[in-house]
Amino acid sequence: MTATPARFDILGIGNAIVDVVAPVPDGFITKHDMRKGAMALIDAHAADTLYAAMPAGTESSGGSAGNTCAVAAQMGARVAYIGQVADDQLGQVFRHDIAAVGVHFPTPPLVGGAPTARCLILVTPDGQRTMNTFLGACVTLDEDSVDPALVAAAAVTYLEGYLFDPPAAQAAFRKAAAAAHEAGRLVALSLSDAFCVDRHRAAFRDLVTNHVDILFANETEIASLYEEADWRVAAERARADVALAVLTRGADGSTILRGAETVAVAPVTTTVVDTTGAGDAYAAGFLAAYTAGKPLEGCGRAASIAAAAVIAQYGARPQADLSGVVAAA
Amino acid sequence: MTATPARFDILGIGNAIVDVVAPVPDGFITKHDMRKGAMALIDAHAADTLYAAMPAGTESSGGSAGNTCAVAAQMGARVAYIGQVADDQLGQVFRHDIAAVGVHFPTPPLVGGAPTARCLILVTPDGQRTMNTFLGACVTLDEDSVDPALVAAAAVTYLEGYLFDPPAAQAAFRKAAAAAHEAGRLVALSLSDAFCVDRHRAAFRDLVTNHVDILFANETEIASLYEEADWRVAAERARADVALAVLTRGADGSTILRGAETVAVAPVTTTVVDTTGAGDAYAAGFLAAYTAGKPLEGCGRAASIAAAAVIAQYGARPQADLSGVVAAA
Repeated sequence: MTATPARFDILGIGNAIVDVVAPVPDGFITKHDMRKGAMALIDAHAADTLYAAMPAGTESSGGSAGNTCAVAAQMGARVAYIGQVADDQLGQVFRHDIAAVGVHFPTPPLVGGAPTARCLILVTPDGQRTMNTFLGACVTLDEDSVDPALVAAAAVTYLEGYLFDPPAAQAAFRKAAAAAHEAGRLVALSLSDAFCVDRHRAAFRDLVTNHVDILFANETEIASLYEEADWRVAAERARADVALAVLTRGADGSTILRGAETVAVAPVTTTVVDTTGAGDAYAAGFLAAYTAGKPLEGCGRAASIAAAAVIAQYGARPQADLSGVVAAA
Repeated sequence: MTATPARFDILGIGNAIVDVVAPVPDGFITKHDMRKGAMALIDAHAADTLYAAMPAGTESSGGSAGNTCAVAAQMGARVAYIGQVADDQLGQVFRHDIAAVGVHFPTPPLVGGAPTARCLILVTPDGQRTMNTFLGACVTLDEDSVDPALVAAAAVTYLEGYLFDPPAAQAAFRKAAAAAHEAGRLVALSLSDAFCVDRHRAAFRDLVTNHVDILFANETEIASLYEEADWRVAAERARADVALAVLTRGADGSTILRGAETVAVAPVTTTVVDTTGAGDAYAAGFLAAYTAGKPLEGCGRAASIAAAAVIAQYGARPQADLSGVVAAA
């Protein structure tokens, strides 16, 4: 079918999470047996125990797709978001912050269930973040959370890979992908984390092969998805599987693959303060520029600028003004 | 009486508040009829309305005396704190953060009453902060909240002037001051805010004249207390009223008056990012050094270093390592 004009550029679906960010020495990561730079799922008890051991922190809205939506909206995109918070103070914070940047967030809060999800983020002196997520209310996100009319109203539906962790979200994922394609829209997926890919490889592979148009991944995530030691080999397999593969490579910039075309994007260098949200901001910049009709080089450039803005500060949502970036792309 | 050795260097008593900090343009302050740089009290409805109008923010533990206690503990002082949070998520955040720096915080949370207090802090491009406080659970702090044995165990009991706003706290204030002097300890007071002084001038004057040993104020606060146009005239009146008057003067540094002695302290210059908590950190550095037996010059120097660390960052509790500052004072 031919799509009618989209009301939103981007609809994000993800785990709605409030971040608790604190600086720690490297010894804290090893003492608590964490995998540095990765995201681990923890239960309520472990969250309480780890929180008690953590230094004083700063709370701010997070969640991978939530961050992407917020940054894309700051960059001028029209954005909607689906995610499950609870009817509590942290849920109110999440709702306030995503609404404050103009993101449409229709998901009602969960009443009488688990609290709003928290991610305990430990930032080491090298700027790396190690994340520990208590999913809380996110586990109740399911097919019923996805309004097909909202999906049909968005040019791109963006799904975070972390959403494969809560039990009922994969069904929501598939429903959203089907509704998007039914309406002639695009489906984008971020692989989120190599260990998340490892936990759900078969489901990810099926989704990527059959339902994803735009794939975001970093080198270790794409290598994990295809179980290839060399990310370049994995990248070629992604080229065959999806219309557009966008591969971030840290300080080496990024590589965009579309059919026979390969676009190398130089990184925007900056002081590394905290890498939390760098990939989310990259996807935001890319999609904001892509849905504005910019060429791939411009999309990559807008993506890199957004990522650099986030890396140069504490927290995943940039304080820098990014409003002119897409127009310049 | 002769005091036994103190178990704590500092006991802070104040409004236990979680800060919500967001950057705004100057136009936001004028549009919402705020007094730039001041603290205004707002009710629950106004807090909801203002929060809805505010940009996305960052939540972190605050409260004037709470900040002072946290910073003094980071600088090596033995610190306790009395303040009223609710049994809610923000109350848990406050408790976690003050405990994480080693502050003893015995006040049990309020159950079934108002929520934990919030201060909506708007930071303009010049680094000035304009504060709007919803007192919430703080209004239930009263005489019963003050344990005289804890007061007697602290070398200095530090009271924030903002505590004059909630209705029952003045009684708590007087009980703490009496218990401190009964035990041969010192009472310190921060005037907090010129408009707060204006609201409660008679009570402040009585307290300063009859019950305070160490007075902290900035130029406008001390001028307001004595209703003098020239802060220098007001300073001389403070010299006569209290054993030790510590007057901060922004970019001009600070002035310490003790009997006939006057000590001028040079400011520590830094980039101004956010002045939230600068006065609190100054008091922390001063009291941490003072209770460690340092000379007034060293106390002023430690105070200025702590204030500069807070001014150079977002938020009232420094990420910088201040552990060696008192020893070097």
